[in-house]
Parts: sequence; C-alpha cells; structure tokens
Amino acid sequence: MSVSTRTVTDICREAKRAARALAQLDTASKDGALHAMADALLARTGEVLEANARDLEAGREAGLSSALMDRLRLDEARVAAMAAGVRQVAALPDPVGEVIDGHRLPNGLDVRKVRVPLGVVGVVYEARPNVTIDAAALCLMSGNAIILRGSSSAAHSNAVLAGIAADAAPAGTVQLLSGGREELAELATQEGLVDLVIPRGGEGLKAALREVATVPVIYAASGNCHVYVDASADLDAAVRIAVNAKVQRPGVCNAAETLLVHADAARDFLPRVAAALGAEGVQLRGDQRARAIAEMGEASDEDWETEYLALVLAVGVVDSLEDAIDHVNRFGSGHSEAIVTRDTASARAFQRGVDAACVYVNASTRFTDGGEFGMGAEIGNSTQKLHARGPIGLRELCTFKYLVEGDGHVRP
Amino acid sequence: MSVSTRTVTDICREAKRAARALAQLDTASKDGALHAMADALLARTGEVLEANARDLEAGREAGLSSALMDRLRLDEARVAAMAAGVRQVAALPDPVGEVIDGHRLPNGLDVRKVRVPLGVVGVVYEARPNVTIDAAALCLMSGNAIILRGSSSAAHSNAVLAGIAADAAPAGTVQLLSGGREELAELATQEGLVDLVIPRGGEGLKAALREVATVPVIYAASGNCHVYVDASADLDAAVRIAVNAKVQRPGVCNAAETLLVHADAARDFLPRVAAALGAEGVQLRGDQRARAIAEMGEASDEDWETEYLALVLAVGVVDSLEDAIDHVNRFGSGHSEAIVTRDTASARAFQRGVDAACVYVNASTRFTDGGEFGMGAEIGNSTQKLHARGPIGLRELCTFKYLVEGDGHVRP
Repeated sequence: MSVSTRTVTDICREAKRAARALAQLDTASKDGALHAMADALLARTGEVLEANARDLEAGREAGLSSALMDRLRLDEARVAAMAAGVRQVAALPDPVGEVIDGHRLPNGLDVRKVRVPLGVVGVVYEARPNVTIDAAALCLMSGNAIILRGSSSAAHSNAVLAGIAADAAPAGTVQLLSGGREELAELATQEGLVDLVIPRGGEGLKAALREVATVPVIYAASGNCHVYVDASADLDAAVRIAVNAKVQRPGVCNAAETLLVHADAARDFLPRVAAALGAEGVQLRGDQRARAIAEMGEASDEDWETEYLALVLAVGVVDSLEDAIDHVNRFGSGHSEAIVTRDTASARAFQRGVDAACVYVNASTRFTDGGEFGMGAEIGNSTQKLHARGPIGLRELCTFKYLVEGDGHVRP
Repeated sequence: MSVSTRTVTDICREAKRAARALAQLDTASKDGALHAMADALLARTGEVLEANARDLEAGREAGLSSALMDRLRLDEARVAAMAAGVRQVAALPDPVGEVIDGHRLPNGLDVRKVRVPLGVVGVVYEARPNVTIDAAALCLMSGNAIILRGSSSAAHSNAVLAGIAADAAPAGTVQLLSGGREELAELATQEGLVDLVIPRGGEGLKAALREVATVPVIYAASGNCHVYVDASADLDAAVRIAVNAKVQRPGVCNAAETLLVHADAARDFLPRVAAALGAEGVQLRGDQRARAIAEMGEASDEDWETEYLALVLAVGVVDSLEDAIDHVNRFGSGHSEAIVTRDTASARAFQRGVDAACVYVNASTRFTDGGEFGMGAEIGNSTQKLHARGPIGLRELCTFKYLVEGDGHVRP
C-alpha cells in the first residue's frame, strides 16, 4: 500500500474497483481475512508500538493535552483488545445477501429485497488509532472498501495499522489517506466513487465536513439525554437508573445530562437522588422547584441544552408527563431518552411521544450501543432519521437492491 | 389555511407541532380523512377546474410549451383519477407502528425496532397539480405533515387542491408555500423543523435544491436503463422485453435506453429486434458490430450515457456477460437493469454484479414502480443508496425508533 504519488481520486477509483470484487466475497473468506488481520496485529505488536512511540513523542513536543495523549497511546493490552475486536466482528452474521423482504406479485414476478454493500465508505477520524482497525474490520465484513483518513497526530500509528489491515484484506479494499485538510475535501466530493463518509470525531471535524461534502455523510450523534421520573416510579429503581445513566461513563453520548421529575414524586425522590449523585461527585443544577426541595446549584436556560459529558446534571420538576415529553422533544438531541414509571399508560405515552432513536422504559440510557443491542461492534451512533438511526453496525453499512425474476414478463 | 402573512419558518413550525399529533393518529382516522379528501375532490371538481382554467389561461399567455400545458391541464377524468388514487392510499397498510425487528437481550431487556413517521416532509414540484393531492395523501397515511411548494404556473390549481387536502387532514398537517425561489431556499434550510425534502421535477429543480439544501433530500432518479440479451436468451422473450422496455411508455425513468446483445446471439437477434422496434417507430443507434448485422444509425460515445426518454435506443454488441455488466455499471444510473437469459449462472452473475436499485431476470425494466411492486403509490424512485433505493412509498416516508423495556436495568 503506497500513499505517496497517487491522487485522492486515483485512490478512490482503485477502492471502487476493488469494492466490486469484495461485494461478491463469501463469508468464510471474509472471516478468514479478519482472523488474519487479528493474527497480524498480535504478531506485529512491536512494530505498532514503535510507530505509536513516534506519534507520542511528536505529540509531547507539540504539547498535546493529556486527554489527547491518552487517546493516542497504544500499549500491548490495547493492541490485543483491537485484535479481539476484529475476531468479534468475524463472529457476527454476514449482512450481505440477507433477504429483507420478498413476495410474488399478482402477475407472477418474484421480488426479493436483498442486502448488499454500499461500495466505498470513507471514515474520517481523530486521534484514536484503534479506529483504523475497528473501521477496517466493520467495512470488510460488510463488503465495503474503506478509505481511512486519520489525523496527522497519529500518522505513524495509522500507517502501520492500515498496512496490517490492507495486507489481510483483499487487494485495494483498504486505503489510507494522509491527514491533510485538502484530502478531507477531496474525499468528501468524490461523487460516484465514494458512497458514504462517516466522521468519527468532534464538532470541528463534523463542521469541516458539512461545509465541503457532496457525497452522503452520516453524522454520528451528540447526545443530550434525559431520565424522566414519573409520578408512579419505583423510586429505588429511579435512583439506580439516574445514577447509572449519569456516572457509569459520563464522557459518552448516551450518558444522561438532565433529570426530570414529576412534581408528585419530587419531594420524596429529589433528596434521595441528590444524596446518591452527590456521593458519586455529581454536581446538580436545578430549576427553582428542584432547588426548593434539595440543595443544588442553579440551572440557567443554557443548561437544558448542554451535553456536559462530565459529572454535572441538570434537574427540573415538571407538572405532567406531557410537560416531560415536551421538554425532551424541545431540548433533546434525539439520542436516548428514559422514563421510570410503574404506570403502563405513562410508559406507552412516553414511548410514542418522544422523538428519539432509543426510548427506554425502566432502564438506563447507557444501553444504546451496538454491542449491547446485539448488533455487534458499531461505527458510531446516528441521531439522523434517514437510513441509520441509533447504532451504526454492519447492516447500516449496507444498502439493498430489488431482484426481480420473471419468465418473459412485459408490462401491459 | 392561509399562506399570506406567515414566514416559511412559521409555517414549518406549525407543521412540526401538527406532526406530533398526526404521528399518534390511528389508522381508521387517517383512512377516514383520506376518504373525506377524495369525497371533497369530487364534490369540488367545478372549483378545481375553474382554478385550473385560470392557470391554463396564464400559461397560454406566457407561451408555455404544449407538453407543459398538458401537464398543467386538469379535467373531470383527471380529478376523478386523483380521488381514486387517494382511496387507493387509504386501502394500503399503515406503515406506522410496524415492528421491523425485535428480540430479548441476554440481560433481559426487550428491544423492538418500530416504524414511525419522519415528521415534516417538504415536497417541491413543477407543473403537474395532481402531485399536490398524491403527495398529501401519501404523507397523511405515513403520519407526516407535508409542506407543498408547487410551481407558480399552477398556483391557482394548487391552492384549491391544497385547501381540499388541508380541510380533510388534521389541522396544520398540510401546508402550501407560494412558488418563489426564496421560499425553496428557506424550506430547504429549516434544520430541526423539516425532516426531509423530496423534489419532483426536472434537473433544474434538483440542481437548485442541491445548491441550497441543508436538510436531508432524496433526489428522485434519472434512469439510464439497459436490457442485456445473453447468448442463451429465448429470443422471442428477448424481443418482447426489449420492445416493451423501450416503447410501452418511453418518457419515464424505467424505460430502456440501451440494448446490449451478446455476440453469439447478435446475428439471429438483431435483425428480428430491429424489425420489431422499427415497426414501433423506434430509431436505433448502434455500435460498429451492431451496424454490421442490422441497418441502423451510428452511436456516438455520448449515446451510452443518454437518457433519451424518447423512441430512440442505443444498441451495442458485447463479447461476454462480464463486458455487459461492466458497461451497465459504467454507464447506468443505478435504476433498473434487465438480463434476458436461459442460463442460471448468467442470471445469478448479472443479479449479483450489477449495482442498481432493481435488477431483472427475464422481465421488462418497466416494472420498477411502487404500484407494480405492491407497495402502493409512490412519491418517486430513488437511485440513492442510503435510506430509500427504488420506489419511495409509505415505508420510505418513515424512520424507526428502538423501544427498550426493562425492570430497572442499569449497565454494569
């Protein structure tokens, strides 16, 4: 694999050609390639860590933050985890060729709707070099050629990892671009060659892509998620769910950012949940009615729209289920929303009324995840409504086609 | 319904509000509204034709082409056909609430993937006023509020038709914009309010939308469709299919534009098909090898990429199935492609190798149509790969959400 002299269009054209053959590859061959990729990762761990050390040194010199340095850092355990992840992808059912729907028409034509790969998928990402392998494995299994465009801060690590993936995969199906801005723009405008671009990174990366992209893009989500505690809630379960949704991993998109409590439950519930959250180091910011019941900071209008991704939680008291639904639909980002209730009518109204990818009854928002949902690894979570909503797994990396069979049928 | 003093954003906001209630409406109520719409169309036919007469007069004064005038023209039969179309939509299964997928996770959580409306759909269209009713009916049945933006040439007709639709539908769920360019741009940038825009019109309209849209758009297809006659084809069937695909309705996107013939079949087949097509008034443009066998005009390189939408057909001879597939994938628009063959291996290879929404074996490309596919009425045909590929019917006007139920589940 060489990235030096070819243009982005050359690379995309090669990927497109390679994708046609990959789309026909049987499951056993794809599984075999994935296990070869995992084996090579383990066998070449030293080479990976050496390249990573060069990136880390450059990062130190450039004064990268400790958070960025941590994302950049690989060690033996992390490489082993990558290899294990690849084997997990190999163990997933092959989405290609699945018959999604089908029937015989009144005129005798047989119609099947069959899942097929998209073709060429571009993945643009930031510091974390493990995305190179995760994304390559998912694209290989779903029959798509992949064009990787990582960040320059991880260039050495990505080059070795992409090389390992490319060696294991069918020729031409794994391509790596360097990290330049122009390459991002060129990749995102290859209509007819690139079928989808997925950004994995912060808002800056998404904004850059939004400005230039003419090929389809699925923007992975930000998550302003809510837990609503209904009047009839089991308060023990409500405390457990609120704490889990906030603190189990606060830095991710399915963590809760706002707690809404029905006025009838607030007096009993708020002191208990405030104590439990306080014990976990969570800072609360309440509206006036919440502050009248439990001690906490003051929420401004901005708090309702903020994805803290930290141990901070906005707290509001609402007069009705309808007010809770309105609040969620107004301020939520359509990611993951939960109600805690014992009332079937409340559960049903919340599930139907809330406009989000995942709506939970008596469970934590933290379950929104391809792995948890039994879809296997995911390449992100979508809050879009078209094509993919929720976890983006192997099936979401596919499209479909209609296969129609007759015996000389013509339209009257 | 008044369009006068409100801004586009006001209108979209009202539609969004109304969409929330519409999404919850039961099937019987939607069916009832659709039948009321059909009844009102018939009862108010005089009013519709009066408004249409004003548009026709303005069109005559403006010197519209006879094709445009024909698209604009309504008569009693056309209004009755619209009403019948609305009743057909009412008879279709309600897509909202369909459980697409579901299972119990190992931890006991129950997950259902359920079809739900998108929310607010914008439909922008050109001369044909019947789109007003067709699109309103499909959106109502799929639980979506609709914002219609027709062309100014049909303004009077559209106003009366949209009024009829709005009177029958739940309040606020059918909105009409006037035909200005600025309104198109405003509609296509209402992120958070408009969930999808669908253009129904020519390339100019699509290009205008491509330039300004920030909300999701599904571009209905152009169709450069092929019929490939394999070496082993039943030549009677091949003649029938080639003629049907070309002449049954040449002006539509699923009509064939190129005929490819395997070299082994060309000598027997080309004279026969040339005679049959000639009898239907089709002008043939062949490559050198085709011209050596049957008399026809000369195809230039451009012909392979041209969607004639007329009684013209490009004809090429290929040496193999693989060459046919390569030609189709290179020049086709990914719409509808057909092979005529008696060989199972050829059929399978063509179905798997051709990258298009609909791939036919021994049947005419003309069957690509929501109605023919048993999906009911359609709002267009997509050659995109994301979300909707092929006919865009009621299901394609929906998204889904995951409903997850537990009994206090938290993530370990």
